[in-house]
Amino acid sequence: MPYSTGFRPIALLTDFGHTDAFVGILKGVILFIHPEARIVDLCHGVSHQDIGHGAHLLDISLDYFPRGTIFCAVVDPGVGTNRRAVLVETRDYFLVGPDNGVLWPAASRNNIRRVIHLTRSRYFLPRVSATFHGRDIFAPVAAHLSAGIDPGAFGAEVSGLTRFAFPEPEPFENGLILSIRHIDTFGNIGLNLASEQFMPFAEQGFLIRINQTTINRYYDTYAAAPEKTLFVIADSAGFVEIALKKGHAASQLDVDKQDTGVTVTIEPCSDFKKG
Amino acid sequence: MPYSTGFRPIALLTDFGHTDAFVGILKGVILFIHPEARIVDLCHGVSHQDIGHGAHLLDISLDYFPRGTIFCAVVDPGVGTNRRAVLVETRDYFLVGPDNGVLWPAASRNNIRRVIHLTRSRYFLPRVSATFHGRDIFAPVAAHLSAGIDPGAFGAEVSGLTRFAFPEPEPFENGLILSIRHIDTFGNIGLNLASEQFMPFAEQGFLIRINQTTINRYYDTYAAAPEKTLFVIADSAGFVEIALKKGHAASQLDVDKQDTGVTVTIEPCSDFKKG
Amino acid sequence: MPYSTGFRPIALLTDFGHTDAFVGILKGVILFIHPEARIVDLCHGVSHQDIGHGAHLLDISLDYFPRGTIFCAVVDPGVGTNRRAVLVETRDYFLVGPDNGVLWPAASRNNIRRVIHLTRSRYFLPRVSATFHGRDIFAPVAAHLSAGIDPGAFGAEVSGLTRFAFPEPEPFENGLILSIRHIDTFGNIGLNLASEQFMPFAEQGFLIRINQTTINRYYDTYAAAPEKTLFVIADSAGFVEIALKKGHAASQLDVDKQDTGVTVTIEPCSDFKKG
Repeated sequence: MPYSTGFRPIALLTDFGHTDAFVGILKGVILFIHPEARIVDLCHGVSHQDIGHGAHLLDISLDYFPRGTIFCAVVDPGVGTNRRAVLVETRDYFLVGPDNGVLWPAASRNNIRRVIHLTRSRYFLPRVSATFHGRDIFAPVAAHLSAGIDPGAFGAEVSGLTRFAFPEPEPFENGLILSIRHIDTFGNIGLNLASEQFMPFAEQGFLIRINQTTINRYYDTYAAAPEKTLFVIADSAGFVEIALKKGHAASQLDVDKQDTGVTVTIEPCSDFKKG
Repeated sequence: MPYSTGFRPIALLTDFGHTDAFVGILKGVILFIHPEARIVDLCHGVSHQDIGHGAHLLDISLDYFPRGTIFCAVVDPGVGTNRRAVLVETRDYFLVGPDNGVLWPAASRNNIRRVIHLTRSRYFLPRVSATFHGRDIFAPVAAHLSAGIDPGAFGAEVSGLTRFAFPEPEPFENGLILSIRHIDTFGNIGLNLASEQFMPFAEQGFLIRINQTTINRYYDTYAAAPEKTLFVIADSAGFVEIALKKGHAASQLDVDKQDTGVTVTIEPCSDFKKG
Repeated sequence: MPYSTGFRPIALLTDFGHTDAFVGILKGVILFIHPEARIVDLCHGVSHQDIGHGAHLLDISLDYFPRGTIFCAVVDPGVGTNRRAVLVETRDYFLVGPDNGVLWPAASRNNIRRVIHLTRSRYFLPRVSATFHGRDIFAPVAAHLSAGIDPGAFGAEVSGLTRFAFPEPEPFENGLILSIRHIDTFGNIGLNLASEQFMPFAEQGFLIRINQTTINRYYDTYAAAPEKTLFVIADSAGFVEIALKKGHAASQLDVDKQDTGVTVTIEPCSDFKKG
């Protein structure tokens, strides 16, 4: 089947993990509908039903994919309820998934052109379950879309898309209260502090407090940091993270992605300069 | 190389996990033999050497793949012994793997056309080890098959295929004794009770007993259930599962896939109706 | 885009795991540059920043891939420092990654033709971070290479490649002191003893000592071994491993891949012959 509208690979993002057949079934469904579809695993390790984590991973990945990529994002705690299933067309991409916020940060940053409410059941599997819309709705729609079907064929255009906002740093005395965006597989703790926001602190010296621990070192590379010392580094996505060379910062600090009780602050402290 | 007999993607199902190179090597072998092969990961998280788990995942996935798909299923505790290596041609699919039962539920449900005993070593790797037939036999055969080789070329037709039966519910007073088919990554406990078998219980009210806990609620969707309450839901594969909203039912009930000592029963109980 | 120089699939080997978007981003970058690229996951479960583990997995996998395969190996604790980024052309393959030893065992065994220092930034992403060269340098170079760019275009040829040697067995009385190469997902403990080196021991009887435990059984297949008994078996990569049927040898022996304090010895012992 020719790509009538250009190259449209499908990037899958789910919280399905790797110990079940859920992801494999999505791929089977896609190949069933469009044998030539190009399928890429973006990530299946989103924390279970964690819309914010999925939104974060989608947001930091989007720009690295080619124009025309279809992101099929299935983090869907409201499956089977009346939350909408949507297809979002942005300047460069398509995003398919539940309208629960998971698509918002990536889609809104790439200029939303239109939001389609997925209602045309001819593009779904014949039987739609109440618990697995990834298989029954989102993968089939992504497959048809990758085969060149026009977005408008899947349903009516609607006006809104559910928003999701990562928390912003909040002012606190002469510093900021931060929050944890993400903990990666290396144990690095991603903060909601953009590298540019951090630069004034880095230049004048700073003190980060997290769970009774203070951190005042900043390095450009992991290798430059001394071993066994917690430090701050610019991550690869434009934010700042707390790292521990040859160690797992999150374990050492006893910090968990889901733990909402952790307070992180940063304040200027001229005793410490860039390491 | 043209597909002489249509589209034949290869779906890989193994217990190899993701921390070794085993799966990658299978893919290298396939591409070596058939550079145009279309390879899909069905699942590599089958519990180690657990034929039943592999058979279950293959069984619930089969129908979602396109006609002509080659399922290469490597869950093979008897590797190197005289268990047969086979290729099963069914109405719609091909299944390649050890003849130890892992192929049975899926193959038999799709109408077995013929079973080929894999003996023609020209289609294997030149050296066949005693411990890794996935690499040395199954992946090469799947690759040649995907390139259009006729199933009959791989060996002689044989009459039988080793059976594997999931345990059926057993009568118990006015209810049933059930067993656990599967625990998924979300902690949902899949029971060997088909949705249709469950419906009479759902309508008149029921009581499920599992490890000193009783469950009497049934919901159509995860979202409809109250938090922190164990409940029953129809899963996406036609069976019934025990779930815990925003929690991990298996952990809460201290139930393990391998734990054969768990007794699960269901009985009618009109005190409780559908929630 | 035609493959001007033959079939060049890209095999990815990283320590990125599966809970982040790192691997997905590599794939996005590759497809962005070369939409027709054929991408294969070799393994993303390399122990974090463990160059030896990465080198081992690459070494045992190489030969199973077709000629022309581009191995993109990102195990890179020195990212952002002055360690070189290189492309190695061998008799049959291309290897792209940091020049820290991870490429050495595989590359040197396949006859190194030339080593290119990756310096031509026109083949990198426009902005190169200090922490994610997989995304910014290695994946882009692999993608351009897969599209047919000549290796010489990526930089100047240099003379050396950083070596990495797995420890060899050392003489010890009338036996050998061994070390652990690898522990796989099944718990099998891979030793640095080639099958041929082991054969004399197997024939005359032997005693392996590891963490206060002795092992003297050798079997050709997992199935031939009795249950709950530690034994030795030739692995699928040409070495010898310690296994436990229906068990996890490494857990039972309390052995960890990273634990350098474990002493393993083998000595002849005629009391025990092949089981």
